[in-house]
Amino acid sequence: MPVAPDLAAIMAAQARLTGKARVTPLLSSPFLDDIAGRRVLVKAECLQHTGSFKFRGAWSAISALPDSLRARGVLAFSSGNHAQGVALAARMHGVAAVILMPADAPQVKIANTRGLGAEVVLYDRATGDRDALGAELAATRGLTLIKPFDNHDVIAGQASVGLEIAVQAAAEGVSAADVLVCCGGGGLTSGIALALEGHAPGLRARPAEPEGFDDVARSLATGKRQANTLRTGLCDAIVTPTPGDLTWPVIQRLCGPGLVVSDTQALRAMALAFERLRIVLEPGGAVALAAALFHPDAVTGDAVIAVASGGNVDRAVFERALAL
Amino acid sequence: MPVAPDLAAIMAAQARLTGKARVTPLLSSPFLDDIAGRRVLVKAECLQHTGSFKFRGAWSAISALPDSLRARGVLAFSSGNHAQGVALAARMHGVAAVILMPADAPQVKIANTRGLGAEVVLYDRATGDRDALGAELAATRGLTLIKPFDNHDVIAGQASVGLEIAVQAAAEGVSAADVLVCCGGGGLTSGIALALEGHAPGLRARPAEPEGFDDVARSLATGKRQANTLRTGLCDAIVTPTPGDLTWPVIQRLCGPGLVVSDTQALRAMALAFERLRIVLEPGGAVALAAALFHPDAVTGDAVIAVASGGNVDRAVFERALAL
Repeated sequence: MPVAPDLAAIMAAQARLTGKARVTPLLSSPFLDDIAGRRVLVKAECLQHTGSFKFRGAWSAISALPDSLRARGVLAFSSGNHAQGVALAARMHGVAAVILMPADAPQVKIANTRGLGAEVVLYDRATGDRDALGAELAATRGLTLIKPFDNHDVIAGQASVGLEIAVQAAAEGVSAADVLVCCGGGGLTSGIALALEGHAPGLRARPAEPEGFDDVARSLATGKRQANTLRTGLCDAIVTPTPGDLTWPVIQRLCGPGLVVSDTQALRAMALAFERLRIVLEPGGAVALAAALFHPDAVTGDAVIAVASGGNVDRAVFERALAL
Repeated sequence: MPVAPDLAAIMAAQARLTGKARVTPLLSSPFLDDIAGRRVLVKAECLQHTGSFKFRGAWSAISALPDSLRARGVLAFSSGNHAQGVALAARMHGVAAVILMPADAPQVKIANTRGLGAEVVLYDRATGDRDALGAELAATRGLTLIKPFDNHDVIAGQASVGLEIAVQAAAEGVSAADVLVCCGGGGLTSGIALALEGHAPGLRARPAEPEGFDDVARSLATGKRQANTLRTGLCDAIVTPTPGDLTWPVIQRLCGPGLVVSDTQALRAMALAFERLRIVLEPGGAVALAAALFHPDAVTGDAVIAVASGGNVDRAVFERALAL
């Protein structure tokens, strides 16, 4: 049965990632501190390869495969950041990546995934059976499926964000703080929580979600896994139906209460990140910063760390944020 | 007589900057490599405190002052990035900063400079005598003028960008390449050139300028200092009348030929930095990247390093870049 990684697996993943993933900076601005009423430190994972933390998990999982299996290639289901992370990590390993994407995915995402060397297979979201198609591709070509979050080595890779935060927060003199994490399936949140448990126990991971997709916050509040009824939204990068099988027990054990922000707050956080940090965030990657800035009463401590998890945003959406 | 810093002065400035300035990342994207036809590494100084490299020189200069002088405060003339760099560096030192700005400077720049704790003194660009006003303020209040580029310790501070590039390029396996630097008065360009001469002699600094403000390129081509006739332009952050007294001899001795880009190319580079690197650049901070992407025949080697020197951009200008 698959399990979440322990600290040894996390350290092993970090060793495999060294020199491959970027150590992203921890940014700040006195103007953001003024808004939040406390120090705000932003972990800029939008600066990671392919524009999101997903590259870490993809590299970790592909590099952990036995050579013979890896050589046959990998498979992923994704229309977004996971697709690009897997595509680049596979290319850097010199192996094939097949990405199953809905035919109505944005053209730019399809083009970008192909641009990173992946073979994109399109399916009809209404009539196609993605899982059956994937299983057939995997069987006939010997591809290994890389799940986006319910995967031991993916979680171990995302945990490297937490290891970096532990070091960087200490260098800033911050040893006790909430670490707000944009949360979809919970791979990044659970990975960071495990890393902090081992390396910075004064830092506490807390999931941040958009309104309407607050399954993790509600699951934490009720103690039972909850599901979302909505399917798509502005923060599409972190829209998932329910907490993951591997990630939920970790989140339940280690994470503080969830925070929930509105779409408008996510857009405002994008505009402030543009103006004050000079980084580009997508709505789903701005949710944690929005929680830090606009829900100060729900945060504890003199400083808060917000993980800015991704920056692959359509121009139209970005212009909407700037126009607010 | 003031002189440019030697390597010892540069190393001393870096020691003073350690833990104060950010070590900014060297970013890349396979999509940018495809456009340029070679590897493109981008030194993201837009992620520096206050959004530009200017913080480094300001911190270096203020931290080098004798205690008794520093305690009386500092003075700068600037409507832009130098003002913000001096304001924050002075605040972090706990000393006063007085910034002389033209009364018609953009309100947001005045507000940002005040927001960083500086006292902003406005003068009328048409009728006021900035230098006389500054001299009077300096004399009556004992303030030390921090010049934007013709200052030994400012150049030494900007040189720390070059020291970081030397280490980061080596980690990327790049030991011979052109290093393109957005160039106004030449403080950053000459600082980087001096650092590379000492620490990475295979890397060569080359100034990049906007059309109409190519005084340094023309000075290098003719061997004599040339001046610009235009006064203002889109790339306002790097518009200066002529190469500096201290910076020009360094640039003449160490730098390769200058590169010149159009305003449209600078805007296109901003849009590509947004899309592929998830960083925000101002036009003057995008000129070196524009040269790397759109003037590949003027660059030598398998890789090129472009310094993205600043990201303090008006929303309207940024939207213009995205709309191209």
